[in-house]
Amino acid sequence: MPETGKPKCGNFCFRLFSFVFSGMKNSRDAYGQQLLAQYKSQTATAEIIERDDFYIDTGSDAGLYFTEYEQWSASEQQAVELAAGRILDVGCGAGRHSLYLQRKGFDATGIDNSPGAIEVCKLRGLNKAIVRPINQIDEFAPDSFDTIIMMGNNFGLFGDAENAKAILEKMSRITAPDAHIIAGTHNPYQTVDAEHLEYHEINRKRGRMPGQLRIRVRFGKIVGDWFDYLFVSPEEMQNIFSDTDWRIEELIAPEEANYFAVIKKKF
Amino acid sequence: MPETGKPKCGNFCFRLFSFVFSGMKNSRDAYGQQLLAQYKSQTATAEIIERDDFYIDTGSDAGLYFTEYEQWSASEQQAVELAAGRILDVGCGAGRHSLYLQRKGFDATGIDNSPGAIEVCKLRGLNKAIVRPINQIDEFAPDSFDTIIMMGNNFGLFGDAENAKAILEKMSRITAPDAHIIAGTHNPYQTVDAEHLEYHEINRKRGRMPGQLRIRVRFGKIVGDWFDYLFVSPEEMQNIFSDTDWRIEELIAPEEANYFAVIKKKF
Repeated sequence: MPETGKPKCGNFCFRLFSFVFSGMKNSRDAYGQQLLAQYKSQTATAEIIERDDFYIDTGSDAGLYFTEYEQWSASEQQAVELAAGRILDVGCGAGRHSLYLQRKGFDATGIDNSPGAIEVCKLRGLNKAIVRPINQIDEFAPDSFDTIIMMGNNFGLFGDAENAKAILEKMSRITAPDAHIIAGTHNPYQTVDAEHLEYHEINRKRGRMPGQLRIRVRFGKIVGDWFDYLFVSPEEMQNIFSDTDWRIEELIAPEEANYFAVIKKKF
Repeated sequence: MPETGKPKCGNFCFRLFSFVFSGMKNSRDAYGQQLLAQYKSQTATAEIIERDDFYIDTGSDAGLYFTEYEQWSASEQQAVELAAGRILDVGCGAGRHSLYLQRKGFDATGIDNSPGAIEVCKLRGLNKAIVRPINQIDEFAPDSFDTIIMMGNNFGLFGDAENAKAILEKMSRITAPDAHIIAGTHNPYQTVDAEHLEYHEINRKRGRMPGQLRIRVRFGKIVGDWFDYLFVSPEEMQNIFSDTDWRIEELIAPEEANYFAVIKKKF
């Protein structure tokens, strides 16, 4: 489609493009299709993640996305217990946190850019589950939420520091004045793995943050799209919030590789 | 190096080639390097296998190669108990079967084409562990073994029917007159997975047996070499032995997806 001017092919062309594009999106939804397959077969499989330096590994424990509260770490349990009111679960996956919070009586909305993930959430009984990438959260009305949760390292969905600031501005708009964000991340420096340390160096050389992973999910024959997923140290997280409306109120288990931040509005 | 005539570069050239080739071999030993990493870190990871139709999956349960007798299936226990005398373990991996048999007092020799796997066997205390691919088993002297074991689906190492016959001839030579082979495989038709069934069809079209997988192992940044690994039904196995010195004496759990054959010499 030409970049300028009205497309000549009109509605048919638009429908064709939409069809092709929606097909492409689904065919690349390795993450969601894996969740769906696991849900339907009731089997626990580990996801396979490729990094852009050809490093490949299983990215999470088998069955992680379907775990229940009792199986979560102490810090994860502590973090999720801080959610209250109208809750937005960003990158909700198979909905384990939203479903828990819904059962507790909260008004939980799960969003994920993966159509397969959202399908699983609905099949599992999550009332509010929407296909929406994080950078489109401003489609929610102002003052829609009291808590935003970004569990399971989903601080990473900010992608990079600049994008984080743009999204935090949107988060500011769609939340109540006394709202808070609960975000989990992974400290990339808590490793002695030579290949991870080498990747930090590659990232520094190309002007990226050391923990800024470019990764994709593979499942069966489906190759997911590349995306950035940001791991930060507590200090790096602090820097990201410096010129935003938000401040870190509390860190949960900052000495551990996986830790959480409770983030409040400055004013 | 030219295909005909004596190479002009002489000894230096040979050494350079040897160095490059040995480096390449090690750098492609994804399977062995993963075993080594698991052994050293005492962690259980699942191996990642790519098939030549772009299908990717974790190929074995995490930690499988380091399991002990008590963790094996009933049919695997039954199969390994039939080994006796001088035993050759083809594709011994981390040596779980050979180590068990060595502890029982048998003279067990493990071979594997993976240098990393053989290193792990030695580290674990296997007295006889040799880097040797299956098609080089005729390097053993005649009448060297009473039992050949091919555990963990290692019937697959035959690669294809034709190669199986050539290797069975070599196995005939290096074993005693009353020797037997104990070989495990996976029945490829015990699946309802659309992607596996589609792969069978791809194989039929290109003149390969449906269960003739072309696969490679990936570990970290190491991409293993492609190799053929053959899954067969009991009937297909029967056909492979038809014009060889060997016959199936007994099948263990032929109704299961993973089953074993006890193979004896015809004469």
